Amino acid sequence: MDQRLIQLDQGSGGRAMHELIDGLFISAFSNPLLAERNDSAVFEVGAGRIAMTTDSYVVDPIFFPGGNIGCLAVHGTVNDLAMRGAKPLYITVGFILEEGLDLGDLEKIVSSMADAAREAGVQIVAGDTKVVPRGKADKIFINTSGVGIVPPGINIGGANARPGDAVLINGTIGDHGMAVLCKREGLALENEIKSDAAALNGLVDQMITACAGIRVLRDPTRGGVATTLNEIAEQSGVGIRLFEEQIPIREDVAGACEILGLDPLYVANEGKVLVIVPRDEAQAVLSAMQSHPLGLGARCIGEVVSNDPGRVFLRTRIGGHRLVDMLRGEQLPRIC
Amino acid sequence: MDQRLIQLDQGSGGRAMHELIDGLFISAFSNPLLAERNDSAVFEVGAGRIAMTTDSYVVDPIFFPGGNIGCLAVHGTVNDLAMRGAKPLYITVGFILEEGLDLGDLEKIVSSMADAAREAGVQIVAGDTKVVPRGKADKIFINTSGVGIVPPGINIGGANARPGDAVLINGTIGDHGMAVLCKREGLALENEIKSDAAALNGLVDQMITACAGIRVLRDPTRGGVATTLNEIAEQSGVGIRLFEEQIPIREDVAGACEILGLDPLYVANEGKVLVIVPRDEAQAVLSAMQSHPLGLGARCIGEVVSNDPGRVFLRTRIGGHRLVDMLRGEQLPRIC
Repeated sequence: MDQRLIQLDQGSGGRAMHELIDGLFISAFSNPLLAERNDSAVFEVGAGRIAMTTDSYVVDPIFFPGGNIGCLAVHGTVNDLAMRGAKPLYITVGFILEEGLDLGDLEKIVSSMADAAREAGVQIVAGDTKVVPRGKADKIFINTSGVGIVPPGINIGGANARPGDAVLINGTIGDHGMAVLCKREGLALENEIKSDAAALNGLVDQMITACAGIRVLRDPTRGGVATTLNEIAEQSGVGIRLFEEQIPIREDVAGACEILGLDPLYVANEGKVLVIVPRDEAQAVLSAMQSHPLGLGARCIGEVVSNDPGRVFLRTRIGGHRLVDMLRGEQLPRIC
Repeated sequence: MDQRLIQLDQGSGGRAMHELIDGLFISAFSNPLLAERNDSAVFEVGAGRIAMTTDSYVVDPIFFPGGNIGCLAVHGTVNDLAMRGAKPLYITVGFILEEGLDLGDLEKIVSSMADAAREAGVQIVAGDTKVVPRGKADKIFINTSGVGIVPPGINIGGANARPGDAVLINGTIGDHGMAVLCKREGLALENEIKSDAAALNGLVDQMITACAGIRVLRDPTRGGVATTLNEIAEQSGVGIRLFEEQIPIREDVAGACEILGLDPLYVANEGKVLVIVPRDEAQAVLSAMQSHPLGLGARCIGEVVSNDPGRVFLRTRIGGHRLVDMLRGEQLPRIC
């Protein structure tokens, strides 16, 4: 029996699982709430509004340029909280491990989660570990759930876009999806494409400080910018126009998309945020974004309009307009 | 293409996923927070203490006598909150679906989750759906995470047991584990063994009303009563003595355990709670338990002692004592 591979009994609830939890998770995620080893973590909050979210991660491969499934899982849940203007505080983590998973890989993933949590200022306060027999899962799946505090006066949500608003983004699109796909397919490019996976709560803080009236924040993950803007257009009952020449994209990402026949508007991002703000506050928010390391490439890429409610159009470089629908079919399974 | 099987594009983030979410999840879990379709649910809380927990469910088979993976996932997280004395309020759910999963099975599971949530008085306010290709998961895995409010004056945790305390349980042991195992192995018994899967928050409410000074509550799931009591003995630095003749067990469960060579003390429960209370309050708590449908079979099964800290001993029917360690190895993978 190889001691460096995950065994079924490490998910049994018994001694082997306790040793894994104590030796790896509690020591890596080190905080007093987790160390209590109770059925739930208990913490104090002041009166107010709490945001709560969940995401499961099944990305393949589990390591990719710019990140791995572990930091991705922390960033993703931090970001879903930040998208409501919440200050992320506490995260839970549920592991589903395949028997035979390399323990060294698990250690790297856990250590990367601990780093990501520390950098984002959140604590991992509760967890769960299941192990399934070989062939019943694929290496490792991770769920993270989280809660955060929504400051008074903030009201950010997908139904708040209004005609005349500006649509901003903090940088280039499609980096995460293409990084994962190139790695998965063994595509050798001149320059390796790196995932943009990052925690956006610091950037969002800075934006909210500049403009408390931000209407919508949403991270364009699965389904990409196109699908996310369609969601917002439907929820708000507005139309959205994108300006193709304003949408930032790295040359190598655009090239890889072309080779693979993918539209970058539908490719997943993990460190990008779409921002909808009243037009007269757009410049202040853009400046706030550009003064943060994760917003250096921020741009205004579109506008909210009253016609064509629920629909997104792209004004192309040559001046035409084409309908940009939600993603149909599945171009990139297991991208996050 | 069979429209009644889960397809990869239902996890894409795109149109097919939105249709699945709107048509199945949002309609079944019907509540205004989920229907907002935002990245996080936002709700108001008063100042105080919040409990937070997570669990992933990988049980095999996904349907078993007395329940299925869906209601199990809701009960489990409700119970983990109740074990800190918290009033469970909000639940999130993360689905990992295998391509080809029968959509009818998913509908049954989701409907059973909705029923379980309603009965337990919790709302499912956020969710996530991933689909992985055939063979990369086994039908369906579910994560549930939850938060609840801990009432003032309640301080329940695994480190609070004191010598002299009584150890209570609300009914028979091993029902869930044996129900799942008999179903999985196709073991035909005269009477079908049913899982005890149930939400314990109502029972716990009634117990706390009878005695605010309850020291420890813990549900003996994976690893069973033996492992759970070992955890408490370690956390509290006390010894625990169990009285074999007092431990309630159904005859058919005891029989099935004997056939399969399993010790029922290590078999999982999903509707049982171990209760540690000061001895002079034990009778009041027992009466409160026995007046609730889920506590009719409540008994005092042991006591907390000062010697042998961190260890659990069983006083056998014939008067001997044997050490009851945590579960070692894995007797029943994928029991929850």
